[in-house]
Amino acid sequence: MKLRIYNAKILTPDGIIDGELRTDGDRICYLSPVSTLDWQDWDREIDLKGNLLVPSFKNAHTHSPMTFLRSRAEDMLLKDWLYKQVFPAEGKLTDEDCYLFTRLAVAEYYSGGTTFACEMYGHTEAVAAAFADTGFGAYIGSGIFDFDGGYDEITKRAEELKAAIDKLPRVKYALAMHAQYTCGDETIRAVCDLSKKYSLPVMTHLSETKDEVESCKAQYGMSPVKLLAEKGVFDLGGTGFHCVHLDDEDIRIMKKLGVGAVTCPCSNLKLASGIAPLKKLNDAGIVLGVGTDGAASNNALDMFRETYLATCLQKYLLDDAVAVKATDIYASAVSGAAFGLEKADGLYIGALADMAVIDLSAPNMQPLTDVRSNLVYAGGKQNVVMTIAGGRVVYENGELLYGEDYGALLEKCNAAAERIKNEL
Amino acid sequence: MKLRIYNAKILTPDGIIDGELRTDGDRICYLSPVSTLDWQDWDREIDLKGNLLVPSFKNAHTHSPMTFLRSRAEDMLLKDWLYKQVFPAEGKLTDEDCYLFTRLAVAEYYSGGTTFACEMYGHTEAVAAAFADTGFGAYIGSGIFDFDGGYDEITKRAEELKAAIDKLPRVKYALAMHAQYTCGDETIRAVCDLSKKYSLPVMTHLSETKDEVESCKAQYGMSPVKLLAEKGVFDLGGTGFHCVHLDDEDIRIMKKLGVGAVTCPCSNLKLASGIAPLKKLNDAGIVLGVGTDGAASNNALDMFRETYLATCLQKYLLDDAVAVKATDIYASAVSGAAFGLEKADGLYIGALADMAVIDLSAPNMQPLTDVRSNLVYAGGKQNVVMTIAGGRVVYENGELLYGEDYGALLEKCNAAAERIKNEL
Repeated sequence: MKLRIYNAKILTPDGIIDGELRTDGDRICYLSPVSTLDWQDWDREIDLKGNLLVPSFKNAHTHSPMTFLRSRAEDMLLKDWLYKQVFPAEGKLTDEDCYLFTRLAVAEYYSGGTTFACEMYGHTEAVAAAFADTGFGAYIGSGIFDFDGGYDEITKRAEELKAAIDKLPRVKYALAMHAQYTCGDETIRAVCDLSKKYSLPVMTHLSETKDEVESCKAQYGMSPVKLLAEKGVFDLGGTGFHCVHLDDEDIRIMKKLGVGAVTCPCSNLKLASGIAPLKKLNDAGIVLGVGTDGAASNNALDMFRETYLATCLQKYLLDDAVAVKATDIYASAVSGAAFGLEKADGLYIGALADMAVIDLSAPNMQPLTDVRSNLVYAGGKQNVVMTIAGGRVVYENGELLYGEDYGALLEKCNAAAERIKNEL
Repeated sequence: MKLRIYNAKILTPDGIIDGELRTDGDRICYLSPVSTLDWQDWDREIDLKGNLLVPSFKNAHTHSPMTFLRSRAEDMLLKDWLYKQVFPAEGKLTDEDCYLFTRLAVAEYYSGGTTFACEMYGHTEAVAAAFADTGFGAYIGSGIFDFDGGYDEITKRAEELKAAIDKLPRVKYALAMHAQYTCGDETIRAVCDLSKKYSLPVMTHLSETKDEVESCKAQYGMSPVKLLAEKGVFDLGGTGFHCVHLDDEDIRIMKKLGVGAVTCPCSNLKLASGIAPLKKLNDAGIVLGVGTDGAASNNALDMFRETYLATCLQKYLLDDAVAVKATDIYASAVSGAAFGLEKADGLYIGALADMAVIDLSAPNMQPLTDVRSNLVYAGGKQNVVMTIAGGRVVYENGELLYGEDYGALLEKCNAAAERIKNEL
């Protein structure tokens, strides 16, 4: 597929230029204020009429099938929510359920300008298949933990998964370990060996809640970051999800080992986990990402909301309206670098053709004093009029364009949600 | 105008019913699961196809013309922002500018399901005219302060404004005093006398920042709430905007005097003002409202974002995922009771026909496990497919339906924003 997108305002790493962008396959192959005529065999021409072309959001932490739990149990204490609602319901999930609810998540991602995610969930082949079948990009891990069995079982399962997922288009196996508090020594050893064998950095939930950090310190005399670092989990760098409760030593360790930090502000607020120290992380030079976490604890998969909130919460936390710049957080939200994605962090020649079109005529985008600030501080999903994933137009003016029978999908999803409720 | 809206899920005070709602003029005149055929002279029939009809949002605190400052100056310290950007730019505003930028705000309100606001700004006749010309409902005050002059000038101006505004449809003069820290004794005396003479409760910015409260205590030995109460400002009840820094005595005084509290969570975060004690206020039985504040400090006029944030910030603040219920905050966001609006707090016979239609098939509204939780925790402007203000369909599928030449409006707004920038 070759696209010619013209009459566009293009958000490039060097600012906004008025011009034209072309794609060849899944890459951007031309970007210029000038329209040359040397290349005319495009499959589709798109006149943006002065609207804004931006890099798509890269959701750096999510559990996509958890759309099945959206609004399932609200305003509950974390423990009740987890043990009385989430875990029992998850026990009833089938591969087919996960496939369906991941497709539902993809519809939500695309309608909000997100085309790539760092995913962690069970039924992992089914989730990967849903991404592959919808053209969505993802790094996918199962979230290895002690319940997966011993060293050999964990290794075998990871290798099977890797082989199955790496065959699929736009998705890649990621070595995701659930968390320090669910992984004993044997599990961690298996993960570290897999990491070395396949040159895969390790991703993990990291210091999400105060309890988690305090328990770890009580048991091991050190923080989860330090403990995992000492055990070699971060020998190849890696990614920490949440990173709410970090001390200065944690941040030094993460910087030294090249561990990226992903913030999930909506989930952290809703579950009363806290606010991640983004300014400190940013000042320390740690690569940041922004994620939604699962729909069960958010409840939307909306990267506009996350980006806005990540920025504003930091101002509140530090009592400093200058704490972090909206444009810095936005850059993190579109890059995917925190989970290892390359050449996706902006619109330039050779970068992934993962993009969204923003309707600048919408009232919340006006006046056009500062388009980038409008995007972060006032922007929302309603402003996305087109989403392009890997060079394919997958969403346009409210329609999903990859053959999704959306009505049938909703029926199946609601039937599955109802069945799971009744089985409990 | 008479509307028949059928095949609807209707959010009533008693829960969601499948049925039909009819309007006559600006009121709801029929609401039932049953479609009777005794009344058929509707001007328009609307088949909602199972979508959700909800009360519209009532934005309980805003400065609509401030859309002209959207993204004008970001990530700045409050003092620099106010004195170097906001005040000088506001000095260049004309009545015509305020009229235009209020129309822009109305486009934003309508596209997000908001049909009513409690407004405070200068150039007040122009703002009122913009509301009246677009069918938007509002309580409008100028924000009286010492710069308005002495007792006689303030009184004369307020009476002129009241006479001019109360003639217009769907808008009403509100007695709005800017704030304790901008109003000396003479101003406050004029406001109190106006309040008694016209039976108008007083609205005011109240305890928004820590500095404001501390300065008041240093100067008068008491909090702004107590000081204004002692001076008689709240003798007829009234409304406090922001209410971030309140102590228990303040809350007791507000309850005793019947002062409503309006929260503006986005603005309070962005300007690092803090988080209002909504749970305490709610538990004390104080009537709550939700507002956006002006676009300069938000930067969107999006009541979904405010409602979501008001709920989740309270969970964070109190380290308690149960702190306030989403449905309680949502009820406050649609009622307008905190600024004295009556019969607008829900869909029932006799209530104002101010409503919005939510597309339940959108991915973030699925599955349909709990529609009300979806609305608050996952909902957004993208889900609003129709807005009805005072019985008129004013917005439908992205189009404004009150004769707005939207392209021309944007051109004029951008020209005005540019002119103001150049004049500084």
